[in-house]
Amino acid sequence: MTPVLHELRGRDDRLRFSPFCWRARLALAHKGLAAELVPMLFTDKSPIDFCDSSTVPVLKDAHGVAMDSYDIFKHLDAHYPDSGDGLLIGDAHAEARLNFVKVYTEQVMAVGFFRLVALDLLAAIHPDDREYFRTSREARFGMPFEEFNNVEAARGILDSAFKPLRGLLANQPFMDGDAPAAADYLVFGFFIWAHIVSDTSPFGETEDAGDPLVQWRERMMDLFDGMARKAPRASEIPQ
Amino acid sequence: MTPVLHELRGRDDRLRFSPFCWRARLALAHKGLAAELVPMLFTDKSPIDFCDSSTVPVLKDAHGVAMDSYDIFKHLDAHYPDSGDGLLIGDAHAEARLNFVKVYTEQVMAVGFFRLVALDLLAAIHPDDREYFRTSREARFGMPFEEFNNVEAARGILDSAFKPLRGLLANQPFMDGDAPAAADYLVFGFFIWAHIVSDTSPFGETEDAGDPLVQWRERMMDLFDGMARKAPRASEIPQ
Repeated sequence: MTPVLHELRGRDDRLRFSPFCWRARLALAHKGLAAELVPMLFTDKSPIDFCDSSTVPVLKDAHGVAMDSYDIFKHLDAHYPDSGDGLLIGDAHAEARLNFVKVYTEQVMAVGFFRLVALDLLAAIHPDDREYFRTSREARFGMPFEEFNNVEAARGILDSAFKPLRGLLANQPFMDGDAPAAADYLVFGFFIWAHIVSDTSPFGETEDAGDPLVQWRERMMDLFDGMARKAPRASEIPQ
Repeated sequence: MTPVLHELRGRDDRLRFSPFCWRARLALAHKGLAAELVPMLFTDKSPIDFCDSSTVPVLKDAHGVAMDSYDIFKHLDAHYPDSGDGLLIGDAHAEARLNFVKVYTEQVMAVGFFRLVALDLLAAIHPDDREYFRTSREARFGMPFEEFNNVEAARGILDSAFKPLRGLLANQPFMDGDAPAAADYLVFGFFIWAHIVSDTSPFGETEDAGDPLVQWRERMMDLFDGMARKAPRASEIPQ
């Protein structure tokens, strides 16, 4: 069977912005696997009723079901170790250190992206999902979207969070060395999420083409025949 | 030949606090290798005249010379891959991600430790080295030691830098998973540096025994028969 990847969709079916679903998409492309991409809404999870998860991504293939982007990486390495560009994760030390990249990305960097694009994100979400999304996220933020969305605060968080990424990428072209793998996809998921829903750059009013992190983002955009670069953006699709 | 590790010494020869030398010491212990520890001063580098480095650690063994703690890790993995507790670094993905831990540790976290203990460090340094150390470091800080040493500023930097370490160590006992390896030694070098030169805790006035990072530090202190815990501290040795 062709692998099936269940993803979140936005107000238009071409808008697929979930950072976690992008991790899975990029991991499939890394393995050279084509997948059927099936959309889901927050408020209608019937497409993934067949499994135990209430969130996407969910991957179903001939080898079974993998839920959560990280488990999808593990599933793909277990069942397609040598396919495409090879292992996503690597040996035991590599996996332990990937966990650090994951925690760093999700607990330090992600909130900066979220505060940068929160209102654009809300507008990109399917109308049926917006009330659920607003209510659940505002409970988590402890403030309304209109206050949480704060470009200045966001850039402060991101400038600080980007520092070690820049330090690393000044010395090697990808997080995972000479070629991209799991760590690159973990981090890039948030860049492509913000890129699809919003025209506001995480780097400020003007981007510095000499910035190693800008250069890395461009390299990531180019991967797999420009897969991320070609993804339709909210600003390109009429409301 | 017995491996020889050239290290920085302090005002007393028992004071060996360099974070980079500790990385090398821990890596040797990881491999189960005993080494002769040879002291050096900033102002008398004659002990390492035999090689191209002007800094310690320098390791010399039957296989050659390795300069810089990171190169010592690579040297030990190359020549003693299966000794003791096995590989320090791991596969190519593991090495690429270790570079992120290294950059994070040195470019984000280290300055917090330095601002916490700068004056205690100056007092722990050999009297012959103090003028050199003060002058060279003040040029780098852009301010005098007395201003750079700022416990409140230090704790702010460390609280923030510790966040993803805590997030990781809440889920796994060591940076490198079930057992310590290169990432743990990279990070711990700064903890043991501060611990030896100063009685000021990086965690604040009272340490929380339930904090996963405090628990990790204690596990690191216990390694190799309590090697780090047994290291003489400046406060135990009269001026």
